[in-house]
Amino acid sequence: MSKKLTIGMFGFGVVGQGLYDIIKTKNLNLEIKKFVIKNADKQRSLPAELFTTDADSILEDDEINTVVELIDDADAAFEITKKALSSGKNVVSANKKMIATHLEELTELQQQYGTSLLYEGAVCGSIPIIRNLEEYYDNELLHSISGIFNGSSNYILSKIFNEGQSYEDALQKAQELGFAETNPILDVGGYDPKYKLTIVASHAYGLFVDPDTILNLGIDKLNDHDIRFAREKNFKIKLIPFAKEISNSEVVLYVLPRFITKDSILYNVENENNGVLVKAAFADEQFFYGKGAGGHPTGSAVLSDIAALRYGYRYEYKKHLESQELKYATNYDLKLYLRYEDEDLLENVEFKSISERFYSENAKYVIGYISLQEIIAKRDIINQEGNFLAELPF
Amino acid sequence: MSKKLTIGMFGFGVVGQGLYDIIKTKNLNLEIKKFVIKNADKQRSLPAELFTTDADSILEDDEINTVVELIDDADAAFEITKKALSSGKNVVSANKKMIATHLEELTELQQQYGTSLLYEGAVCGSIPIIRNLEEYYDNELLHSISGIFNGSSNYILSKIFNEGQSYEDALQKAQELGFAETNPILDVGGYDPKYKLTIVASHAYGLFVDPDTILNLGIDKLNDHDIRFAREKNFKIKLIPFAKEISNSEVVLYVLPRFITKDSILYNVENENNGVLVKAAFADEQFFYGKGAGGHPTGSAVLSDIAALRYGYRYEYKKHLESQELKYATNYDLKLYLRYEDEDLLENVEFKSISERFYSENAKYVIGYISLQEIIAKRDIINQEGNFLAELPF
Repeated sequence: MSKKLTIGMFGFGVVGQGLYDIIKTKNLNLEIKKFVIKNADKQRSLPAELFTTDADSILEDDEINTVVELIDDADAAFEITKKALSSGKNVVSANKKMIATHLEELTELQQQYGTSLLYEGAVCGSIPIIRNLEEYYDNELLHSISGIFNGSSNYILSKIFNEGQSYEDALQKAQELGFAETNPILDVGGYDPKYKLTIVASHAYGLFVDPDTILNLGIDKLNDHDIRFAREKNFKIKLIPFAKEISNSEVVLYVLPRFITKDSILYNVENENNGVLVKAAFADEQFFYGKGAGGHPTGSAVLSDIAALRYGYRYEYKKHLESQELKYATNYDLKLYLRYEDEDLLENVEFKSISERFYSENAKYVIGYISLQEIIAKRDIINQEGNFLAELPF
Repeated sequence: MSKKLTIGMFGFGVVGQGLYDIIKTKNLNLEIKKFVIKNADKQRSLPAELFTTDADSILEDDEINTVVELIDDADAAFEITKKALSSGKNVVSANKKMIATHLEELTELQQQYGTSLLYEGAVCGSIPIIRNLEEYYDNELLHSISGIFNGSSNYILSKIFNEGQSYEDALQKAQELGFAETNPILDVGGYDPKYKLTIVASHAYGLFVDPDTILNLGIDKLNDHDIRFAREKNFKIKLIPFAKEISNSEVVLYVLPRFITKDSILYNVENENNGVLVKAAFADEQFFYGKGAGGHPTGSAVLSDIAALRYGYRYEYKKHLESQELKYATNYDLKLYLRYEDEDLLENVEFKSISERFYSENAKYVIGYISLQEIIAKRDIINQEGNFLAELPF
């Protein structure tokens, strides 16, 4: 009943090894024939003849019908994925940057060659959000999708709010534990959750959006004043990717720090965990929570995709194909807290309205409304050292 | 690309109307041709010619290829479903008692006639747990599944623990709000969550178990002493259906009140909300949260099933067909709190061990281990007026 999969795998890092551990315990009618790795000299836990540095030994092997791509380099991953899909191989990938950046072209390749690309592991580890948006919420009116998509930032924020650690100490701890990238700006600057948001929003709303056009600001400028402000109001700060249908034809997308109240389900998502909150007209609030990263949780998502390929599963992209009504928009006003250093900022950034201003020796902030468009246009000024922007509850 | 569905619907209550509301807003290539209702005299919001009391006007209409069954009566629902599946019609049902009680026969009918029966709406309203167990966790090693599956009981417990209400007041409030059945024992006695557990466990472990053989005790005997005991230890009490793989060949299943600690994700599931917690070897802790009942959330689950039928979706029951290794077992020891009135109880029920005993003028309790087998055998004694049993964290 199921098709036998002969797999070529790119990469043998944390996720690849997690996946191999899982596959060992199961009788799944699949075989991993070859691993392509970058460093031929590294000691491996498996027989040497399974490893090669030559990509074509997978891509030009007709017996291999399935490519599992688990490498970091988004450009190399794209070349591999394109070539595999074009030559009749199905692909499973966990590379969020690659998928987010090239989703439209990758969708066309799948249609053209009748191949399947699955990427549940690219978004929030073990949480099956893509599959559910694609299959289960295919006819729901989705008001919004938000959540905690980045474990490293969330770990840092948990240490700050629950244990009183400083931003610097918490970041260092996250790096020691291996949660944070060596270049932490991908996490704390909101780039990683932005790629995931791009993919999620695509399956929710049938949109292809270039992630470079989506606003992301992170928690890297957070200081003690912001933390105190949040504490006094019983808020926590979380880094929130957000997609919202603002009209019948428009969806806004952005990643910003947000002050979260106790009654939000995201308030209790702590440490490296992830959560996805779907607000829908009929299903109401639906929340998915789980491990967002790590070899085994992400390996388990990749395995679910591999297993689904045995039964010919593919994303149908029904929302993309059936309606082209929704467009990415930026004409949306946000209620914001903006701590700033240089008075010029208030002249350079156009506020729709200002409801509070605060000055002290140590810090100045304003609370008011700014349009998403304006934040995107003035991103570099707003994101200067000494400033911190976060969204407030309405 | 999708098949046109011509639907005959049994029942036009809260869920049926919720569903109709949803379908109106969408262009789904489906038509509801006929409603069969029990009471012909009731005023309806739709044209009278859509309604009939004659079941055969759906079941013997060859143009109708899809039956949506949303009636309360489990026996009548089973007759309808059997006849529909046997005559080539696919069926969507939200009747948990009917599905739980007849799942094995219903599975055979689907195989025999090549028809499809979907029932996501029968388990935890809008939460897509069956679909995810069936499709996404089809190769996971599932350690356990637990959760809050009954909104009425949980609403009552929330009122008790968060607002200091008495059990009686909270039950009355739940009934006024329409959360609780007129005969509340189905909810507070743990029958409703037991039917859901039977279905969930079947899709998790490939088991067919007669729900009558599964232990359920409820919260109906809860009194102030138990509440005080929980409060002193910072516990909340929740009514928890539980399935756990205790060995390579055995799964235990039961529904019991449980003392829940603050660090459990179930601690924060309040009021009429539902949550399903899946613990898996590789995906780790995965949690699904949403509205467990109500016309729109359940209607949205039923709609997802209907929409999936347009693309020929059916549960594969792979776990049932591929392996018959797992069996339902009761050789499992539970750590329990048992408040009792009559000293004879301690002689009649065999404890594996007792670690605490408490006596006062108002109440007596013991803490110790009892086997699941023994609780099932002595259920009637344990469940007598004046006693209350709840599971403790290990």
